Amino acid sequence: LQNCAVAPITRPMTAALLGIGTELSRGDLINSNGTWLARELTELGYEVTAIDVVDDEPNRIVSALVRLAEAHELVICTGGLGPTTDDLTTACGSMALGAELVLDEPSVLAITERLARFGRTLNDSNRKQAYFPKGAEILPNDWGTAPGFSIMLRGTKFYFLPGVPSEMKALFERRVVPSLGLPLERTPAEVVLRTYGLPESFVNDQLDGIAALHNVIIGYRVRFPEIDVKVHARDPDRVAAEARAEAAARDIFRRLGSVIYGRGEVTLPGVLGQALLGSGLSLGVAESCTGGLTASLITAEAGASRWFRGGVVAYSNDVKSGLLQVDPRIIDTKGAVSVEVAQAMAIGVCRALAAQVGVSVTGIAGPDGGSAEKPVGTVCFGVESPAGTRSEIRRFAGDRQQIQRAAAFHALSLILSDPSLTEQRRAMFTE
Amino acid sequence: LQNCAVAPITRPMTAALLGIGTELSRGDLINSNGTWLARELTELGYEVTAIDVVDDEPNRIVSALVRLAEAHELVICTGGLGPTTDDLTTACGSMALGAELVLDEPSVLAITERLARFGRTLNDSNRKQAYFPKGAEILPNDWGTAPGFSIMLRGTKFYFLPGVPSEMKALFERRVVPSLGLPLERTPAEVVLRTYGLPESFVNDQLDGIAALHNVIIGYRVRFPEIDVKVHARDPDRVAAEARAEAAARDIFRRLGSVIYGRGEVTLPGVLGQALLGSGLSLGVAESCTGGLTASLITAEAGASRWFRGGVVAYSNDVKSGLLQVDPRIIDTKGAVSVEVAQAMAIGVCRALAAQVGVSVTGIAGPDGGSAEKPVGTVCFGVESPAGTRSEIRRFAGDRQQIQRAAAFHALSLILSDPSLTEQRRAMFTE
Repeated sequence: LQNCAVAPITRPMTAALLGIGTELSRGDLINSNGTWLARELTELGYEVTAIDVVDDEPNRIVSALVRLAEAHELVICTGGLGPTTDDLTTACGSMALGAELVLDEPSVLAITERLARFGRTLNDSNRKQAYFPKGAEILPNDWGTAPGFSIMLRGTKFYFLPGVPSEMKALFERRVVPSLGLPLERTPAEVVLRTYGLPESFVNDQLDGIAALHNVIIGYRVRFPEIDVKVHARDPDRVAAEARAEAAARDIFRRLGSVIYGRGEVTLPGVLGQALLGSGLSLGVAESCTGGLTASLITAEAGASRWFRGGVVAYSNDVKSGLLQVDPRIIDTKGAVSVEVAQAMAIGVCRALAAQVGVSVTGIAGPDGGSAEKPVGTVCFGVESPAGTRSEIRRFAGDRQQIQRAAAFHALSLILSDPSLTEQRRAMFTE
Repeated sequence: LQNCAVAPITRPMTAALLGIGTELSRGDLINSNGTWLARELTELGYEVTAIDVVDDEPNRIVSALVRLAEAHELVICTGGLGPTTDDLTTACGSMALGAELVLDEPSVLAITERLARFGRTLNDSNRKQAYFPKGAEILPNDWGTAPGFSIMLRGTKFYFLPGVPSEMKALFERRVVPSLGLPLERTPAEVVLRTYGLPESFVNDQLDGIAALHNVIIGYRVRFPEIDVKVHARDPDRVAAEARAEAAARDIFRRLGSVIYGRGEVTLPGVLGQALLGSGLSLGVAESCTGGLTASLITAEAGASRWFRGGVVAYSNDVKSGLLQVDPRIIDTKGAVSVEVAQAMAIGVCRALAAQVGVSVTGIAGPDGGSAEKPVGTVCFGVESPAGTRSEIRRFAGDRQQIQRAAAFHALSLILSDPSLTEQRRAMFTE
């Protein structure tokens, strides 16, 4: 692998992924690690030809390792590095290599320190995580107890990473990628645009022709209700690659418009927070059918306390008319799910929390509670801000969870598009 | 396979799954078919030891088929049966078998009829879907154009199904399962116990020896901060299998105690709702550091409106002293993160929402805001109920998201363990 940096690239290097664990092979857990790594490696220029899963049976793990070594130049294994007796990956790596397991003192120390921070002491199960095949390169794990490691097996570079996705991703990005020694031109120039609320097929249709026009690859990553649009351009000339990716992203921005809420490593609540901070405004939310999800998305963001005052989950009508001072007669005549109640909730939450901007959500998330006039998925929104009072009615598709998520994201986007904030929205492209 | 029904079962039959397609190996699409089939086959009593993915490269497809035939008694392949040029599965099955492809006239007719219903006529691409390896058993597809088929390859039964999940599932349930000829005793007896808040290594250590003692298999499924403990017992005598699984589950219950909140298909908010409904009590939540997540977990549950009144997300101190009527002097002297403030928040939320039971959460989710005395992860809880007022301080490990999740689950569990509710908690084992 080290030689790749100097050799001319004529064909992509082949890679394979192996997920280890009976929870995967029995179908209790989906191998999302394999798919995530496949996507990352593909973007790095590898040809991933296999994503395999094997159960916690030592002979089968060893044969999978040996088999994958024969047909690939890079293999990344995930899972089975935990402290329990069914975590056999390290032992199997050792067997495949014909090397003994040796205790790595720096790892013992790191694990002990990590446990101590949480008031726990090292036991035998944890100590097991500090053994590695002799000669392995250890990949310290700052995000969990199980370190990863890498070995050369029959001429193939193997990496072993923990199965916990957050730890696996951190180790891949911080330890594996830098050690792959990829020449710059194998890393594509990338622009990521973040959108929400559109079906993937619609986005795909809207962007028809852009890939060919700019000679870029367009990929999608769906995390309902968000879709990330990724633009990748490859070119021996890095500047040319970046210019092509940028031009394509600009075209995409023109076609998709305001559903794009940001580019790069941003989140919708984060962009919203920046816009509110920039305008010197504070936010309060009043939720009925989303039941705290909108507030929860906001407070998942560190530092939200600088612009988020709080929320009221008005799940019962009493709470709407009590804390939020919605006139009970409006609830009686228009119904709890109505633009009139939504509007009154937005005004009420501003007053109750002394917030300058308020957003409200009231709707029917289902599965029960729908009617012919207001079917499941009907959601009303209200926004109160220095720019005035607005309301809106929408209908979302999907199950209860999807309706709640779609509605919470829509509530956030409604604030972001409020006239009191739009001027503050960060420019995504320098003109 | 047909003989298994009469032969005594000494060990489960092994099965493997193969997903075929470059969209899978590149990571553009997750292999959800493999996970779904693994779960179905496991429940039918098979031991699924591999879930593999291979790209659309004929040599690699053929070698995967031959390799899986060698180590398994049943192999189900999905994908690559479509009309386009990169759909190579049938041709590869043929190659592996050394049999020629022959046109199946009944399939031509079925495809023609199906296309006609949508106003289309048969073209060469569609006709390709009516070719099968000579001797294959054809599985008519009433849910799409591509029929499936099965062959015996080196003594192993292979099924080939389309990759579209709805068609794959329909063909599996209607065509594959009936042809497997499964005896009843191959399905393991299963008990699932749901726990929260414990590290996997701790659970594993606590349950040491139970698997051997009762001759059962114990598996874990981690969805932070929850761990499902699954007990599987196999026996030709179904009653004996169930008795062993039950006895093991009872032992697990004795060892793990109150961290087990339920068994079977239940959720913590669902169990909590049942207990509150049974006690005729309503709930309100006051959240600071969890920022709406506790309310959101509750309202993810359909029907929560019968027992959940609502919540206050008191992210700023003003909201704590305003809506929740927490004495500002307590906040000043004890700090916003203190058992005193937590207790006052729980009392305040009962009053503000006219709820009989109130729970509160105030803590430091990080990454900033920690101190030597109250480091990141410190969370205080309060509970107000007919049984009195309680408070508690805890320290959680992990990143912001993990601390928030752990705290929200803990808040729910604190209510569940409240003396006003424990009598109502459903018995998990019949004595």
